[in-house]
Amino acid sequence: MIDTPASHPVIVLIRPQLGENIGAVARAMLNFGLTELRLVSPRDGWPNPAAGPSASGADEVLDRATLFETTTDAVADCGHVYATTMIRRGMPKPVLTPAQASDAIWSNPGRTALLFGPERSGLDKADVALARAILTIPINPDFGSLNLAQSVAVIAYEWSKRTELAIPTALELAPPAGQQELEGLIAQVEALLEPANYFYPESRVAATRRSLRMLLTKPAWSSQEIQMMRGIFTALQPRVRSNSSSS
Amino acid sequence: MIDTPASHPVIVLIRPQLGENIGAVARAMLNFGLTELRLVSPRDGWPNPAAGPSASGADEVLDRATLFETTTDAVADCGHVYATTMIRRGMPKPVLTPAQASDAIWSNPGRTALLFGPERSGLDKADVALARAILTIPINPDFGSLNLAQSVAVIAYEWSKRTELAIPTALELAPPAGQQELEGLIAQVEALLEPANYFYPESRVAATRRSLRMLLTKPAWSSQEIQMMRGIFTALQPRVRSNSSSS
Repeated sequence: MIDTPASHPVIVLIRPQLGENIGAVARAMLNFGLTELRLVSPRDGWPNPAAGPSASGADEVLDRATLFETTTDAVADCGHVYATTMIRRGMPKPVLTPAQASDAIWSNPGRTALLFGPERSGLDKADVALARAILTIPINPDFGSLNLAQSVAVIAYEWSKRTELAIPTALELAPPAGQQELEGLIAQVEALLEPANYFYPESRVAATRRSLRMLLTKPAWSSQEIQMMRGIFTALQPRVRSNSSSS
Repeated sequence: MIDTPASHPVIVLIRPQLGENIGAVARAMLNFGLTELRLVSPRDGWPNPAAGPSASGADEVLDRATLFETTTDAVADCGHVYATTMIRRGMPKPVLTPAQASDAIWSNPGRTALLFGPERSGLDKADVALARAILTIPINPDFGSLNLAQSVAVIAYEWSKRTELAIPTALELAPPAGQQELEGLIAQVEALLEPANYFYPESRVAATRRSLRMLLTKPAWSSQEIQMMRGIFTALQPRVRSNSSSS
């Protein structure tokens, strides 16, 4: 039935309340390459017309979503079940961060189900008891209130770091120009500043030259940018050649 | 004006459309300990009554939010400006993942502004041009459509990994029982299985004992759990003592 690799976790929403949130979860999932959504007794039944608009095009996730009566049924084929919750009192289970859970999902043999409780109340104890571990997003202890889709987004994002989809975007960036080009610019600027009495007083000349060099070195300009800077300084050069050569 | 440390980035929403989304952004921010929200020309003005409900209690972020006419004004005091966008064509700037941006924000001297564009269109070129670097969440190339608050949640989550708030939750987990207790259990089970002719045929006895040991060693049960297992096997012990001693 499932044609996705076992390393792709199944997202299980237990008694979700709003169709909008189911759609937003589907959207968060597909952004990070997850497609297996399972619903346990959604409050307003399934399918739910409110889910489509908030899925913003993640229809394939909604279309493939499967419906279950109990959490046990929903995770029947999953070797690993993690309960996403902040409630842990009296539940002595290992607690994983999203990064740790991602490591586990990628290295565990077998498929993993990630359980998410209803919007208002979160997972109940019976559902947490089903899980081998608790998955907690570390958050502000004074304000812990991630919504359902935000939680799914953070966990799916962390999981996706190891997928091939998540290739860091290639840089279109031009490399910095070679030192010789930079020296050409620095020499040009110094030559321009000297007759303008910029390096004054004499005692400060060395320090000022050093500062100028640092200033122009820092940007890591490309060849093209260095050329542009040189053009700018050339444009600012005194027009009357006899003026600068007269001193 | 700002009383938060410079290592806490400012979230700048440029021409946001829906008040609900501004509230959801505030909620995502506060979960990860961010409180500085700036709004550039929100479509429906500011304050916006639709923002409160979706902030789910993150009112302090909305109350402190500041309003600007231009992006330039909004980032005037920020030494680093990162544009959150997927659009990069013709914009040769460094591209950072959320993790790289987080590293940069924590190590950069000075405050960082993170720019987010309008929901529908994203940042325009003029706003991207303002930024020193582009921040991109690597996503499914066939479905790139994170909503505004989901994007903020992922980036704020990644940033928060270095905050003191994000202390991994302490384990309430009982350690595995000592080996002696485990041996006690294994011996009990073996003693129970032997009269039941479980270790048959003779040629397989050693292998079967080894398998049994592996089976009972794997769970890493705590003392209490070992006691519970022993209670279970004791309960399964043949009632009639004379039966088991007759063979």
